[in-house]
Amino acid sequence: MNMANITKKVSWSSRGDDSARGEATPLLNGTEEVRYTRQPSGGLFHISRLSTVDLEEEITSEEQDSVRTRPNMIPHNEKLLSLKYESLDYDNIENQLFLEEERRMSHMGFRCLEISRWVICGLIGFLTGLIACFIDIVVEKLAGIKYIVVKQNIEKFTEVGGLSISLILWAVLNSSLVMVGAIIVAFFEPIAAGSGIPQIKCYLNGVKIPRVVRLKTLMVKVFGVICSVAGGLAVGKEGPMIHSGAVVAAGVSQGRSTSLKKDFKIFEYFRRDTEKRDFVSAGAAAGVSAAFGAPVGGVLFSLEEGASFWNQMLTWRIFFASMISTFTLNFFLSIYNNKTGDLSNPGLINFGRFDSDSVAYNLYEIPLFIIMGAIGGLLGALFNFLNYWLTIFRIRYVHRPCLQVIEAMLVAAVTATVSFTMIYFSNDCQPLGQDQTKDDYPLQLFCADGEYNSMATAFFNTPERSVRSLFHNPPGSYNPLTLGLFTLTYFFLACWTYGLTVSAGVFIPSLLIGAAWGRLFGILLSYFTSGSSIWADPGKYALIGAAAQLGGIVRMTLSLTVIMVEATGNVTFGLPIMLVLMTAKIVGDYFAEGLYDIHIKLQSVPFLHYEAPATSHWLTAREVMSSPVTCFNKVEKVGTIVNTLSNTSTNHNGFPVVIQIPDSDEPGMVCGLILRSQLIVLLKHKVFVERARTRLSQRKLQLKDFRDAYPRFPPIQSIHVSQDERECMMDLSEFMNPTPYTVPQETSLPRVFKLFRALGLRHLLVVDSENRVVGLVTRKDLARYHMGKHGLEELQLAQT
Amino acid sequence: MNMANITKKVSWSSRGDDSARGEATPLLNGTEEVRYTRQPSGGLFHISRLSTVDLEEEITSEEQDSVRTRPNMIPHNEKLLSLKYESLDYDNIENQLFLEEERRMSHMGFRCLEISRWVICGLIGFLTGLIACFIDIVVEKLAGIKYIVVKQNIEKFTEVGGLSISLILWAVLNSSLVMVGAIIVAFFEPIAAGSGIPQIKCYLNGVKIPRVVRLKTLMVKVFGVICSVAGGLAVGKEGPMIHSGAVVAAGVSQGRSTSLKKDFKIFEYFRRDTEKRDFVSAGAAAGVSAAFGAPVGGVLFSLEEGASFWNQMLTWRIFFASMISTFTLNFFLSIYNNKTGDLSNPGLINFGRFDSDSVAYNLYEIPLFIIMGAIGGLLGALFNFLNYWLTIFRIRYVHRPCLQVIEAMLVAAVTATVSFTMIYFSNDCQPLGQDQTKDDYPLQLFCADGEYNSMATAFFNTPERSVRSLFHNPPGSYNPLTLGLFTLTYFFLACWTYGLTVSAGVFIPSLLIGAAWGRLFGILLSYFTSGSSIWADPGKYALIGAAAQLGGIVRMTLSLTVIMVEATGNVTFGLPIMLVLMTAKIVGDYFAEGLYDIHIKLQSVPFLHYEAPATSHWLTAREVMSSPVTCFNKVEKVGTIVNTLSNTSTNHNGFPVVIQIPDSDEPGMVCGLILRSQLIVLLKHKVFVERARTRLSQRKLQLKDFRDAYPRFPPIQSIHVSQDERECMMDLSEFMNPTPYTVPQETSLPRVFKLFRALGLRHLLVVDSENRVVGLVTRKDLARYHMGKHGLEELQLAQT
Repeated sequence: MNMANITKKVSWSSRGDDSARGEATPLLNGTEEVRYTRQPSGGLFHISRLSTVDLEEEITSEEQDSVRTRPNMIPHNEKLLSLKYESLDYDNIENQLFLEEERRMSHMGFRCLEISRWVICGLIGFLTGLIACFIDIVVEKLAGIKYIVVKQNIEKFTEVGGLSISLILWAVLNSSLVMVGAIIVAFFEPIAAGSGIPQIKCYLNGVKIPRVVRLKTLMVKVFGVICSVAGGLAVGKEGPMIHSGAVVAAGVSQGRSTSLKKDFKIFEYFRRDTEKRDFVSAGAAAGVSAAFGAPVGGVLFSLEEGASFWNQMLTWRIFFASMISTFTLNFFLSIYNNKTGDLSNPGLINFGRFDSDSVAYNLYEIPLFIIMGAIGGLLGALFNFLNYWLTIFRIRYVHRPCLQVIEAMLVAAVTATVSFTMIYFSNDCQPLGQDQTKDDYPLQLFCADGEYNSMATAFFNTPERSVRSLFHNPPGSYNPLTLGLFTLTYFFLACWTYGLTVSAGVFIPSLLIGAAWGRLFGILLSYFTSGSSIWADPGKYALIGAAAQLGGIVRMTLSLTVIMVEATGNVTFGLPIMLVLMTAKIVGDYFAEGLYDIHIKLQSVPFLHYEAPATSHWLTAREVMSSPVTCFNKVEKVGTIVNTLSNTSTNHNGFPVVIQIPDSDEPGMVCGLILRSQLIVLLKHKVFVERARTRLSQRKLQLKDFRDAYPRFPPIQSIHVSQDERECMMDLSEFMNPTPYTVPQETSLPRVFKLFRALGLRHLLVVDSENRVVGLVTRKDLARYHMGKHGLEELQLAQT
Repeated sequence: MNMANITKKVSWSSRGDDSARGEATPLLNGTEEVRYTRQPSGGLFHISRLSTVDLEEEITSEEQDSVRTRPNMIPHNEKLLSLKYESLDYDNIENQLFLEEERRMSHMGFRCLEISRWVICGLIGFLTGLIACFIDIVVEKLAGIKYIVVKQNIEKFTEVGGLSISLILWAVLNSSLVMVGAIIVAFFEPIAAGSGIPQIKCYLNGVKIPRVVRLKTLMVKVFGVICSVAGGLAVGKEGPMIHSGAVVAAGVSQGRSTSLKKDFKIFEYFRRDTEKRDFVSAGAAAGVSAAFGAPVGGVLFSLEEGASFWNQMLTWRIFFASMISTFTLNFFLSIYNNKTGDLSNPGLINFGRFDSDSVAYNLYEIPLFIIMGAIGGLLGALFNFLNYWLTIFRIRYVHRPCLQVIEAMLVAAVTATVSFTMIYFSNDCQPLGQDQTKDDYPLQLFCADGEYNSMATAFFNTPERSVRSLFHNPPGSYNPLTLGLFTLTYFFLACWTYGLTVSAGVFIPSLLIGAAWGRLFGILLSYFTSGSSIWADPGKYALIGAAAQLGGIVRMTLSLTVIMVEATGNVTFGLPIMLVLMTAKIVGDYFAEGLYDIHIKLQSVPFLHYEAPATSHWLTAREVMSSPVTCFNKVEKVGTIVNTLSNTSTNHNGFPVVIQIPDSDEPGMVCGLILRSQLIVLLKHKVFVERARTRLSQRKLQLKDFRDAYPRFPPIQSIHVSQDERECMMDLSEFMNPTPYTVPQETSLPRVFKLFRALGLRHLLVVDSENRVVGLVTRKDLARYHMGKHGLEELQLAQT
């Protein structure tokens, strides 16, 4: 028996527990979720500004000095868990109103609802495809104009000398485009920065990220990504597509726009978190589908990244949205390309088809692929690690919008300069093929007539095209030095770029880095094997390298495999891609987390993983719950309710409704659960018992009233309750959820976790053996525990 | 307000409720699950024998007469819900022993467990791939010998006349092979009949189908499928592969074989339902992956068909198993085909690659594809409908093993005869190509030299090869009449064959039927458009037709799309295949259910779908639960326990443990839940309070003792408890699950359903406001309600 061990572990941890809670307890006792008070200037996910302010507020001057003198102790908040994020309620509130409505609905009614769900999903797919198409065409046009102008300029100055003017032209063009993109993001909607994938992950997980699915975010995102891609940054437009799809879904499914103050009076049934989440996952899938031409990959992405739910009908709807999205995109692009109706080339990024006959692989290549996977994992971990430090640096020093814009412009200028220098000093000349003249922008520079600069195909091009060239250009198109230098510079450029205040994704840069070193790997192989025919094609190694690098950075496996397979249009490489992605993940996870997870952690988001930490069985609900809990009676005095809601120190969002035993101090028996948002609607409509008695004509409050207020419930301060009214009573029984889920105090953390996660709960009541409330478990109580290097660790809760 | 409507509906239904329960109540009051008493002669899923016996037992002689005279009233059991199926417990029983073990385990321990999970999945994949490889090679060899013998015979007799001898030879060869296959299935392991997919679906859903994952079943399945495919039946070997994978998984993960009485003393941690289910889903995925070369499709199949769980780590493991399975199969097949190491051709069935350049599709073909989807849906519904009646016929009249063997032989002989006749009367001669001579068996028959009989490529071949020919043979290889006749005959043959007492799948025959009419559709199109080049290739219509037909029969969408895409090695057709499968499903669902669902329903399995019926909100836990419940005290008299367990009329499997308020008749407060299986282990080890006091040396009962007994717990009758011992007390507190999930009585059915399904529960306690047990909800209580044509219907419970 190693009982002693257990005791030691427990006691160690309970000390950890105490110390962790020590700071927060005075404020947090019983707090479940602090209502988010909107800060005027910044986004929540936008790392740079807000968090730093908050952090600096926390650090007293003395502490700050000590931090400054010890640069190793850069304050970052990955060990904190923010209390500013509300949760979403992915469990239906089955109160009396809801049940009445459901019971009133006929079989036909449910069928109509089901049909409208399909219609909405179709619309989501259509609009997402349309937006993707718009972004693609505008980016192509803008970038095309830019490259042609610069190319002409370079050609002009190549002979007469003075290429520095071309460089300046290029850098200025890039910077000004990026400036526009950075300004709209930094000043108008900071939440639109980055790829948006971490935010959507959080949303699907059940964390409410403010303003993440608003129309304004969508606009900023779309124009931001156009500017940053056309501005020549090392970014892709695929991540933002996923975010756009999610916003479209959230908008369409609600049948109204709060921003535009337009209510179409349709789809009112879907105005709650559960339904909205389902549509948002469809939107995200549609985004992936449009971006990569990968409808199945989109479905898997939605499920792998976000969902804890798996429902056949829902999955089919998601699939349908994805399908329509690819279809729409293909159709409009086929019109744009004057090949109306030819749908065979799906997706925004088109890796080009790998011909299955010429490109095959053999058993003895598998170990090579695995080695490449490991390299990808290592490089990915390095990328993530560097980006992690960079992000912390940004949190500390680059938090003002204007600084952020300047940084973005600087990166744009540096990117142009580095590219130009690389091209300038490269002497890798290749003969011009027939097929390159139309779409690409081959630079002759100092090469002989009929030749082009090979470095320029990688740098002087949109990243998507560079990837395609690396995959498909015939052997010998690049020399190893070119590829090596390109990999090196692009790696650091991409790493610097991710996290800038621009709307941009990391998929394409990762693929590009990987494709470059993958192709290099292939070329080196054929050197060493003295050009044996099986190694002849470096394109497949470029593909494997791309997969390895992307896998090493984002750490998806299943969905990424399918996305890669769908994007290359060939299943032959399914098996090697899987192997490579798995290896990359295993190797990468050993050193650092995935990029998205790092950014989620740095934001201190209470993210719930699939399972509770393995060694958390010794924790019980009693230890993790918040207590005491503020409860209400079934019929409660309005004054009490208003006071409780107004009390900023106990800013709860859910209140158990109890039956108090008369003349007893013991906690009451659970008979329901009511949310802050519901109470606010009740107060706003003044649903008081006395009024109901005196004025019979008063309209009964309906589910519609709650739906109209969803999701932006007014704060309690905006509701005026007179002194007379404070003496009235409110009957909650009709509005509360009469059957909240409960667990006994002895329930182990993994069991609580499973219940919470599987049902998408927001509040879980902890009761004693006589069904009396003793505590409340919320997302933060569970997200607090995680596996660290030394076993189970507990994050600190912070108001930031 | 249409309150009146609701009332009416409720009252109608409560009448339905009463009448439904009327018959069962005397026996079933408080019954949750009837322990399965093993019947000596038959399988449970094997429709023909057992159910009929049971049905006939139910029907008294008078009733039977009336049934006989009115042939329309064939008794079938789709409106019944059988009580003979136990549930599996997919929720961990977190009793004190379990928690102690978990708490004792270090971080490293959990890591080792995780690694062993991966190792097991690797093993599962490897063994499944190996078995698939074995089946494939043996079938090819056997069928090859058969076809060569018959071909030589035909060639011999074509000139001299007397082809009837060839026919007899063919029919006899087929029948004898099928006879062997049918005998081993009918007499040794009836559960191995059919494809096994419905059984695996049920298993993953949480229904315990006896003997479904045993070694013997695997053996019979493997040899059975070899015989039936080589015997020329209209069957495929893919469904059985999935079942085989599941059996392998269940065996490997437990680290022992109960049949062989061999315990390797490893993987003991995994000896419980939850862990076993996870591995079985990996096994099923590995089976799909081996059968179709579709690792992603396998994962999706497991999730779509079976699972309510979605856990990232689990999904990756499933994916890993699938990958290894394809890999193993490819590797060994490449050795067999003397192309060692060439892994580019995955899967058992290989549809051949569609070259993406020559075969593309255009926008205006989409409506055609949708029409084909609708045709597939209609033909699928017809197939299912015919098979449904045939199955009922078999349940009634073909229930003796020898009759079943004879039927199987008859079908084999008829298949041979029909094929021969079709070939004989066909005058569709085609010139012999270069590439067909090696692998196929072209029959010259009455054709000119250098030509072959086109009908014979469809009939005189294994179905996989026929599918491939239909997909890839150049335009003009078949004339429309040949295809039309072939579709017609094969449709009825396949329909007759499915449900025979042989081990065989329905995937390949469905694909073949679809490919035939699809190709016909393509040919007719090109006639009508007078041979315009875009319609030139009928192969793609064959592919679309195959997808439509298969979708119309089995009604899968997402997983089937991916499987088809992976099996054809081309994503270009992803979009049309999806559209076609969706159309086929929508059209098909309108007329009849999917084939697997029909067979599950005919077995009266309490299968839980993803969601509760839409209009079931007016039902509450109080109405669906079984009550009163037999409870135990925390410390209970052995005699009481033995009596309760022995009582066959209240054959419960789970017992709430309560704290009785002294001197009160009211139900006690819940403090735990204990299972029959646990009590049996306790009784077997005589864990009585008195004994513990007197003999201190007695070993404390450990989790290992429960694991050793898992999953075949002895019946209560086999445990001897003396009269003295009956007076002892048993302390259940250490062994019971102290934190069972509970719901209040007012909880609506959908909410109960969601909790039950999401967590994979077996028992859900219903409590009143003071936490006292008032009822128990089990699988049957929930599965009983389903959407019929007239709204919510309630199935009757039956002991059969």
